[in-house]
Amino acid sequence: VILAVCLNPALDITYRTTNVRSGTSHAVEVAGERAGGKGINVARVLHQLGIASTVTGLLGGARGAALEADLDAAGVAHSFSPIAGASRRSITVVDPDDAMVFNEPGPVVASEEWRHFLDRYRDLLGAASAVTLSGSTPPGLDRSAYATLVGIAGAAAVPVVLDAGGPALTRALAQGPTVVAPNRAEVAETLERAIDGRTGLRAAAEELRARGAGSVVISDGPDGLVCATRGGAWLARPPHRVTGNPTGAGDALTAALAAGLERADDWPEILRMGVGWAAGAVATHVAGEIDERVAAEAAATMVLEEMP
Amino acid sequence: VILAVCLNPALDITYRTTNVRSGTSHAVEVAGERAGGKGINVARVLHQLGIASTVTGLLGGARGAALEADLDAAGVAHSFSPIAGASRRSITVVDPDDAMVFNEPGPVVASEEWRHFLDRYRDLLGAASAVTLSGSTPPGLDRSAYATLVGIAGAAAVPVVLDAGGPALTRALAQGPTVVAPNRAEVAETLERAIDGRTGLRAAAEELRARGAGSVVISDGPDGLVCATRGGAWLARPPHRVTGNPTGAGDALTAALAAGLERADDWPEILRMGVGWAAGAVATHVAGEIDERVAAEAAATMVLEEMP
Repeated sequence: VILAVCLNPALDITYRTTNVRSGTSHAVEVAGERAGGKGINVARVLHQLGIASTVTGLLGGARGAALEADLDAAGVAHSFSPIAGASRRSITVVDPDDAMVFNEPGPVVASEEWRHFLDRYRDLLGAASAVTLSGSTPPGLDRSAYATLVGIAGAAAVPVVLDAGGPALTRALAQGPTVVAPNRAEVAETLERAIDGRTGLRAAAEELRARGAGSVVISDGPDGLVCATRGGAWLARPPHRVTGNPTGAGDALTAALAAGLERADDWPEILRMGVGWAAGAVATHVAGEIDERVAAEAAATMVLEEMP
Repeated sequence: VILAVCLNPALDITYRTTNVRSGTSHAVEVAGERAGGKGINVARVLHQLGIASTVTGLLGGARGAALEADLDAAGVAHSFSPIAGASRRSITVVDPDDAMVFNEPGPVVASEEWRHFLDRYRDLLGAASAVTLSGSTPPGLDRSAYATLVGIAGAAAVPVVLDAGGPALTRALAQGPTVVAPNRAEVAETLERAIDGRTGLRAAAEELRARGAGSVVISDGPDGLVCATRGGAWLARPPHRVTGNPTGAGDALTAALAAGLERADDWPEILRMGVGWAAGAVATHVAGEIDERVAAEAAATMVLEEMP
């Protein structure tokens, strides 16, 4: 079972309207309400592909109950730790030309609630073959939250995929995460410098390894993945750019990396799955889903180059 | 007691953020959640000024419960009729330069739920000295909803102030509402023609009277009010334009008209209160509140011109 951690899940509400303009009122249609957050998207992708997973995290209030009901309806296994605060909303306003997203910060988590979650996390790790850590952390948790979770997984000998940047990544590196999967912007934020071109990504990946990561997979959007491991480094990309909705591509990549670790694939095979699933996510409108035909084609035609 | 009807109340959620741009994600702060809707704003203004009122309408779901709790906290008396659907949200996104509002349509109301509301409305009219009808109607009600409510109030000999436009106003006119208080745009929508200048408003007001309204008060924004009654017609305006937030000015005017009817003031006195409260509402940031100092000054200095 792959354990997907979603510390700050959101009730994703989609509004459909026309002609969004500042300074005015808009009548909207409520086009959907569903459980969201990066960890939940990871679990959704794994569920779609028939890979056993459980999503865990912190959840509360009427919106928390709505989140669980939506996951039940989708058949996604979950085991959240209850908190007194209410889970957040995320509002996406879609008009025919565009979309805007408004993300609430989430509930304040008390230190006792965090300790209760850690107990649950330890229990769930007992049955886990890999764990993913991704997405924002709610107010009240400090910047070491992901470092703590990486350390506990390491002690339990469960491989970890961490998708984070900035101080959360910096602190987690010291705990030796199996794989870190930041994007280019997150790498720049973490190393506090601009990252130029592919050679810059390659050097940055090695720097993240030197700081403690076992392997590093940096996603560079439509330009593919730069990967550095103990056994080699690669650029992996689809043969042509996939256009569409990039939301959720990072989550599909995280899911693929965890699935690859679980199967103990070699890196070229893991990257093939990563390029495929990410392309499949870009081809759908909704985060947490992939277009399996696009994914299979992108995986089959992946261009893999060794990097010196 | 003034009975304020709010058929489609909303949980008004305010998000504060910076640099709202299309095509991007925004971290927001939840700056507030409160009970909203035009009828609730009317009741809030009356409550602020110490005038006994009750707000009624249709309400349901967890958001309906949150609405009632907020009214309780504010000390605003309410008696809503429960429905199976969930009350709507309204999201206001505020950045330092601007604001955008997204209004959900509201719950679908079943015909049986509407009949239950009508029973409650009849009961509440027994103790009412005036009733206000304002704001949107939820899905499932037809365009005769306000006409029905005007007719029932008339049968109970309770004077009615109706703030509506378009088909809802057209149908309600035939039931002889005591006062209708549309704005310029609503008048144009109702008469299906452009309304030019003050003489156009004056003629339109007479036309609405001819169709069944006892008195007509058309609000022309910062340019004041055009009023036509059986006993005369007036232009009433503040001596200088009040700048600020026009949201809620119409609700303050509706509240003033109902309070004037309750006290059986003569029309110049009612208009003095209407100009004052509307100016007081423009001077505040929040709908449902008035700046009493600004209101008193605008009322004291109101310019009243008879119109031929």
